[in-house]
Amino acid sequence: MAEQPVAQDQQEQSDQPGQPAVAAEAPAVDSPAPSRRSLLGWGGAGLALGAAAAGGAVAMARSGDSAEPAAESGAAVAFHGAHQAGIATPVQDRLHFAAFDVKTDDRAAFVQLLKDWTTAAARMTAGHAVGEGAYGGLPEAPPDDTGEALGLKPSRLTLTIGFGPSLFDRFGLREQRPEALLDLPKFPGDNLDKARSDGDLCIQACADDPQVAVHAIRNLARIGFGKVAVRWSQLGFGKTSSTTPEEQTPRNLMGFKDGTRNIAGTDTAELAKHVWVSASDGPEWMAGGSYLVARRIRMNIETWDRTSLQEQEDVFGRDKGEGAPVGKAKEHDEPFLKAMKPDAHVRLAHPDSNNGAKILRRGYSFTDGTDGLGRLDAGLFFLAYQRDVRKGFIPVQQSLARADALNEYIQHVGSAIFAIPPGVRDQDDWWGRTLFSGKA
Amino acid sequence: MAEQPVAQDQQEQSDQPGQPAVAAEAPAVDSPAPSRRSLLGWGGAGLALGAAAAGGAVAMARSGDSAEPAAESGAAVAFHGAHQAGIATPVQDRLHFAAFDVKTDDRAAFVQLLKDWTTAAARMTAGHAVGEGAYGGLPEAPPDDTGEALGLKPSRLTLTIGFGPSLFDRFGLREQRPEALLDLPKFPGDNLDKARSDGDLCIQACADDPQVAVHAIRNLARIGFGKVAVRWSQLGFGKTSSTTPEEQTPRNLMGFKDGTRNIAGTDTAELAKHVWVSASDGPEWMAGGSYLVARRIRMNIETWDRTSLQEQEDVFGRDKGEGAPVGKAKEHDEPFLKAMKPDAHVRLAHPDSNNGAKILRRGYSFTDGTDGLGRLDAGLFFLAYQRDVRKGFIPVQQSLARADALNEYIQHVGSAIFAIPPGVRDQDDWWGRTLFSGKA
Ligand code: HEM
Ligand code: HEM
Repeated sequence: MAEQPVAQDQQEQSDQPGQPAVAAEAPAVDSPAPSRRSLLGWGGAGLALGAAAAGGAVAMARSGDSAEPAAESGAAVAFHGAHQAGIATPVQDRLHFAAFDVKTDDRAAFVQLLKDWTTAAARMTAGHAVGEGAYGGLPEAPPDDTGEALGLKPSRLTLTIGFGPSLFDRFGLREQRPEALLDLPKFPGDNLDKARSDGDLCIQACADDPQVAVHAIRNLARIGFGKVAVRWSQLGFGKTSSTTPEEQTPRNLMGFKDGTRNIAGTDTAELAKHVWVSASDGPEWMAGGSYLVARRIRMNIETWDRTSLQEQEDVFGRDKGEGAPVGKAKEHDEPFLKAMKPDAHVRLAHPDSNNGAKILRRGYSFTDGTDGLGRLDAGLFFLAYQRDVRKGFIPVQQSLARADALNEYIQHVGSAIFAIPPGVRDQDDWWGRTLFSGKA
Repeated sequence: MAEQPVAQDQQEQSDQPGQPAVAAEAPAVDSPAPSRRSLLGWGGAGLALGAAAAGGAVAMARSGDSAEPAAESGAAVAFHGAHQAGIATPVQDRLHFAAFDVKTDDRAAFVQLLKDWTTAAARMTAGHAVGEGAYGGLPEAPPDDTGEALGLKPSRLTLTIGFGPSLFDRFGLREQRPEALLDLPKFPGDNLDKARSDGDLCIQACADDPQVAVHAIRNLARIGFGKVAVRWSQLGFGKTSSTTPEEQTPRNLMGFKDGTRNIAGTDTAELAKHVWVSASDGPEWMAGGSYLVARRIRMNIETWDRTSLQEQEDVFGRDKGEGAPVGKAKEHDEPFLKAMKPDAHVRLAHPDSNNGAKILRRGYSFTDGTDGLGRLDAGLFFLAYQRDVRKGFIPVQQSLARADALNEYIQHVGSAIFAIPPGVRDQDDWWGRTLFSGKA
């Protein structure tokens, strides 16, 4: 096993302080990084979509060769583990995020969908097409896989599922709804578009190749046809956060380094304290899970671009070139909050101003054309993971919404919250099992 | 000079049969590929935007070291040449395309904008920030550059400008409007959204890193503030065409290889015959230029995904796995049109069905969220370059619109046409000079 090339966030997934029960059962392997091309012969014995969807386990290729180093953008990320991938995983370059509405009242059909999704997600994460035997060998049936990712690498694809508050109004789940999965309060300045908010479910697809992320969401949507429908979706073209302190911090569309101070994906103590739900937090089915807040934040790009450098730096409390906190020389120097203006973003967002609140940020820049007034519809699709939103996003956003100097240049236009169930432990496990089977 | 690392499409740009007058004057060098980071010290003597915009030539870094091989995705593409880059240039992975409306009647101000844009475009293409001395050292002024591409590589960025028919209603240009720049006819099935069609100007930004393409359009829009406004813009997340026969053909969102039969960027004879406007074509100012047709083509993804493999292959006249034409074994085998169904896309689009018409396709896949009916707003942003649309796009699209089996699964929802002026020859030249100065 030690000789097996192990995909990147295996380590952090398999040995988590705080969730021994879950971690102990998590298998320690997953597929290395094959090329999609090498595994997908054309014309093998195919399965029609219906058959594949109704079926269960799919034999996963586990050949030990052609693996790539974990940091390589072509590599595969482990799908199985105590926690879902896509949270502590080093942030990939691109995002496709989709929120779904449930269209069925048939609990068994929905559970079957979760199982089918799990099978497909595991396959796609490993760089395979959906369905066995290429993507459909029977000419009279639709191919199992839509095909546009054939020949592409796994590209560190992660697929992360979440359950929104409204899901718990269905399927007799009311009692299972976590207290922490509250309906977010309205914050000062919110200008939320219902059509870009909420959802019964979400799937976050992150990958280094956008075609791989788009392919994954599309194929999951397709498998869910008739049972779920995409409510809204968001493409993120560039990461704005880092969970890997060693790498160059990416810049957001305001031109500032973003993600300098964040929870590192390798910091198991911080993750256990601030990101993963522990068994004692309750409910039981959420142990090893997390909570996600998604906010579509539009930037007033044109106004920002005409703002002086001094004002821009005052807004954040950091300098633009290096990213150093006010009065300090280097990006990673400890911020001295009192040197910053009282309304500086970093000062107000800092744990010291919020009772120690910490979140794991994983947002992406977006540009969705223009708004009809000749202005780019661009900004930050903010994604934050935390153990409890009442001690994470909510207090921090309350500070920010009240006083942040940045508010002059941004507007929150979409919002959603999801309970992120724990990881899929092995091939017999499936997304949401702890919730739907009542067993942890 | 032969020792200088020469950026990728230099060769094809500098020695073009058919346009000796232009080609002879084209300089044969441009910047190799520095890292944006290495060139952009923070805190140098900066220029406020106004000063930079009013200024003229900017000293270009031309150090010979740190160059990368032409095919590397981080490398810089030559900005100067007989033709604009971004046409014959090997297709980059990502696109940001913007159409602009002109907001000024002041010809001199508009010409100044074209000059300022040229300076900025040359700098960004080479991997530099806009403006000298980093992006603004004066704290009381807005930075010259918005900053989000700092630290990123040139990423093979190309910026290609085009002039729409409506531009010629302004600035006393009516006499200069090329006959070939016609208002496209309405084709059967067109369902065009005015808000995503037309434009006085366009800029196509292609790069291997989307952040670099988005940054470029945004900074050009910013320099144009008050003189032009973005009318519509389109992000393309994955190329669907290749102009490089050696590389793996990309797949479009229907899962088929796209770009198998296309004009190669290295095929100077084909380019001269089908893509570049020659001096004898007229008008004189267009010699070395081309014409671009852009069509936003929505795919009915959900219907397509439920279509049998046989039907999908019949629609194109090629098989899905390999991309081979009907009855042939290999992707690059010559299509035998009579073996295909009469309404097969490839059969109808083939030059033999259209009097020899050939176009250079350079389209990108897009996904712009959902349409309110739970369907992905996804498809192909089709871009085609040609010497004369009357012998290129129009006859081909007439065949397709009339009979293409693909029409059941697609809809043209946006349309625009632009005259692409010749390349910027050297540092004293600027975008559109041949049109506005009356000198070739
Ligand atoms: C468009 C909106 C936003 C932009 C452009 C933005 C940008 C930034 C930047 C540039 C930094 C400094 C670099 C760093 O430490 O990562 C930062 C820090 C931070 N931001 Fe934001 N941010 C935005 C919204 C938010 C929101 C909505 C929250 C949470 C409610 C948030 C929470 C934080 C936190 C916790 C830090 C780290 C503070 C510290 O520990 O020093 N940000 N943000
Ligand atoms: C969503 C719309 C479209 C899709 C999905 C599509 C897809 C394809 C595919 C898969 C091929 C075969 C592979 C190749 O040779 O590149 C092809 C070929 C071609 N298409 Fe399209 N296409 C679309 C629209 C158009 C339009 C609007 C035009 C021009 C008006 C066009 C012109 C061509 C041409 C000229 C060929 C090459 C034919 C040959 O020489 O064999 N296509 N297209």
